Amino acid sequence: MEKPLRLPALDPSSVAEQRRSSYPEPFRSRMGDRAKRKLGDACGLTQFGVNLVTLGSGGQSALRHAHTLEDEFVYVLAGEVVLVTDGGEQVLTAGMCAGYPAGTQDAHHFINRSGAPAQYLEIGTRVAGDDALYPDDDMMWVDGEQGKVAAHKDGRRY
Amino acid sequence: MEKPLRLPALDPSSVAEQRRSSYPEPFRSRMGDRAKRKLGDACGLTQFGVNLVTLGSGGQSALRHAHTLEDEFVYVLAGEVVLVTDGGEQVLTAGMCAGYPAGTQDAHHFINRSGAPAQYLEIGTRVAGDDALYPDDDMMWVDGEQGKVAAHKDGRRY
Repeated sequence: MEKPLRLPALDPSSVAEQRRSSYPEPFRSRMGDRAKRKLGDACGLTQFGVNLVTLGSGGQSALRHAHTLEDEFVYVLAGEVVLVTDGGEQVLTAGMCAGYPAGTQDAHHFINRSGAPAQYLEIGTRVAGDDALYPDDDMMWVDGEQGKVAAHKDGRRY
Repeated sequence: MEKPLRLPALDPSSVAEQRRSSYPEPFRSRMGDRAKRKLGDACGLTQFGVNLVTLGSGGQSALRHAHTLEDEFVYVLAGEVVLVTDGGEQVLTAGMCAGYPAGTQDAHHFINRSGAPAQYLEIGTRVAGDDALYPDDDMMWVDGEQGKVAAHKDGRRY
């Protein structure tokens, strides 16, 4: 029998799946069957996050968004996703990737329109003061008493 | 026929392989059959690097090293590598990962002791003033007129 890996090595299956979303409804439900394992956090990394994401049929990676200050990168490990950006749609299969430099305002997300789960790595820097912009949806983040809270674009809180 | 992906999406096979090493001999040769595709750079990212690395049988990812200021993460995509750290050796197969927080001084590298190529993603933050420490080898980086140059640990340049 193999010995379990010990840090700094890590078997992703040993990291708990998280299915929560910080979005309010009706956006949260739109994510569908989305489970993340926070691999970077599990290894003690602080400068960037690395999530192993399993996205079921019909699921979305996030609302279509653009980061103001954080670079982001995704690498598809299995299955097939549709990348949506300002430039339109592209199908990404296993072994394909995408990179989103901070500040371009070109918003992006994945939708799984296939009939099978897809899996990918998402990597993003952690930069104080970063914001996410949502060109397609009536959502923005505003400063609340306990951190950022979701609001309509006219400022009303969700 | 499929249309080629366009940025922000990227087909890694469209990125040129790089086989160079910044190490002096005798260290450079020790890397063996190692080819990197700089995916993050190809996407215009600046805050972290993402390399898709193919490591042939007998090859090494790097000299065993520890970064002073940069977090690093690796995810094995195919094949089998041996991770060497201060805590000893562990075999990592496809789907396994490892994370190296900045400043721990626990040095790490991969060796491919299998008979087949291995492939992995390596991700590292870019932090000004970062240094790499090499506990096993008579190598360090010192300030030269045109950036960092390799020196013996007594200061003599290679």
